[in-house]
Amino acid sequence: MPVFRLTLEYDGTDFAGWQVQPGGRRTVQGVLETAVARVAGQRVRVRGASRTDAGVHALGQVVSVGLDTGLSPERLAGALNAVLPADVAVREAARAPDDFDARRHARSKLYRYRIWNHPARSPLRRRQWLCFPRPLDLPAMRRAAVQLSGDHDFRSFTAAKSGARSFERRLRRLDLTGEAGGEIRVLAEGDAFLRHMVRILVGTLLEVGTGRRDPDSMPAVLAARHRPAAGRTASPAGLCLMRVSGDFPFGNGALRGELP
Amino acid sequence: MPVFRLTLEYDGTDFAGWQVQPGGRRTVQGVLETAVARVAGQRVRVRGASRTDAGVHALGQVVSVGLDTGLSPERLAGALNAVLPADVAVREAARAPDDFDARRHARSKLYRYRIWNHPARSPLRRRQWLCFPRPLDLPAMRRAAVQLSGDHDFRSFTAAKSGARSFERRLRRLDLTGEAGGEIRVLAEGDAFLRHMVRILVGTLLEVGTGRRDPDSMPAVLAARHRPAAGRTASPAGLCLMRVSGDFPFGNGALRGELP
Repeated sequence: MPVFRLTLEYDGTDFAGWQVQPGGRRTVQGVLETAVARVAGQRVRVRGASRTDAGVHALGQVVSVGLDTGLSPERLAGALNAVLPADVAVREAARAPDDFDARRHARSKLYRYRIWNHPARSPLRRRQWLCFPRPLDLPAMRRAAVQLSGDHDFRSFTAAKSGARSFERRLRRLDLTGEAGGEIRVLAEGDAFLRHMVRILVGTLLEVGTGRRDPDSMPAVLAARHRPAAGRTASPAGLCLMRVSGDFPFGNGALRGELP
Repeated sequence: MPVFRLTLEYDGTDFAGWQVQPGGRRTVQGVLETAVARVAGQRVRVRGASRTDAGVHALGQVVSVGLDTGLSPERLAGALNAVLPADVAVREAARAPDDFDARRHARSKLYRYRIWNHPARSPLRRRQWLCFPRPLDLPAMRRAAVQLSGDHDFRSFTAAKSGARSFERRLRRLDLTGEAGGEIRVLAEGDAFLRHMVRILVGTLLEVGTGRRDPDSMPAVLAARHRPAAGRTASPAGLCLMRVSGDFPFGNGALRGELP
C-alpha cells in the first residue's frame, strides 16, 4: 500500500490541538482523516511528527499516511486542499518508503515562538504572537537561553502530567532574535520536545526578561527536576512548528524567506 | 478643547471598512466613537486620515479627535484599549494642535499589499495576504510598476463610482519586493489615493505577472481614463495602511522592523 508524506500548514487557533480526542473536539488529525476519507474513500489513521497543543500553529508539520490509491502525490494534495477547511492545507506531498512513520522517524524539530513586546496590544498579531507589554531585558534572556541549550534533564520544563518515561533531551538551539520593544522571536530546535516544553522555556525566559529571575539561575532550575521550579507556560498562540527533519527525505516545511 | 492624534492598528477582516455607514454595520470609526463615548462620556466624531475599505487592515491609521477631557494622551490610549474590541487598538496617542484634522492634514500615505505566490493556499496567511497560486513574472510586474509610478490621471484605476472630482495623483513609489513562488510585497506611497486605487493597481500588476497583459501597455491603460481598461480589483485582505505623514507630527505608524 503506497505511503505518503504530507507537509501540513495550519492555523491552530480554532483547533483542540493535533491529536484526535475522545468527545469529538475539533483536531487537526481528525479534520485531516475526514478529508482523506472523502478523497480516497478510506478511513485510515494519519500520523503526525509532532502532537501540537491546542492553539499551536504549524508551517511544517509532517504526516505519514498509507492509502490504497492510484492518485499521484500532487493530485492527492490538490484533492485534500479542495475539501480541507480554510485553516488547514497540505503544502507538499510525496511518496515515502513503505515503512515511513512521521512520528518514529522524526529526528529534529524546529519551533518558533513570537513575542510582540510593545505597550499596546497588536490586533494584527493577536492570533500568532504573544503580546507582552512590559519592557524586556533581551541580553539577560539570551544569557539564560545559553544555559538552557544543550543536553539536559528537562523535567522542570514539562507539564506535571507529561507521561514521558525519560526527560533527557538535546536542545540544539535556543536563540532569541529581534529587539526589545518590538518583534522578538525565539527559535528552539532539538531532537524531541517534552509536552509544553517550548512554552515553559519561553515563559521562564520572560520572567528573566522582566527581572523576576536571575539569568544565571537556569542550572538550578534544571537541577530541581520539578515543574514549579520553572516559569509559567506561555500562551500557545505564539508557537509555530516550522520544520521537521528526519531519516527520510522530509518536506522542507517553511520555505525560503519564511524563517525565522 | 484639546485635540488628540491617535495612531490606530486594526484587523479589518470583520469590519465593513473605516467609515460609519447608514444601517449600523460594524465599522472602525463607529467602534472607536463608541469607545470614546464610554471613556470620555462624549459622543463625538473621529476623523481618520484614510477611509479604508471593508476588509483592509491598518498598522498606522491616523485619527484626530477633539475631546473635553483632562486625561493625558497616555491615559486616554490605555482607557480606549481597555474597552476597544480585540481587533482594534490605539498604538500611540499625542496632543495635537487645536486645528489638527487627520484627513485634511495628511500629505502622504504608505500602503503595503502582500501576495503569497504558492500553489498551496496558506492557512496562516489567509487573513492578511492574497493567496495567488499561479506562477508570476516578477520582472515584468516591476517593469509595469515603473510606468505606473509618478504623476498621472488615475481614472482607470478607481471604482467606476468614485465620487472624486480630480483623478490626478502623485504615486511616489510602487515597489515590488520578495520573490516569485513565495512572499511578494507591493509598497505604494503617494500623496492621496483614489477609491480602490491600490487594489486595482495590484490587480493589474497580477495580470501582467501571469502574461495576460503586456508590461509596456501601462501608458495606454492610464491614457484610457476608463475603469475597464485596468485589471481586476484585488482582494482587500492583502492590503494594509502602514503609515501616514503630514504637516503635523504624525505617529510613526509601523515601527522599526515592521516595514515592509
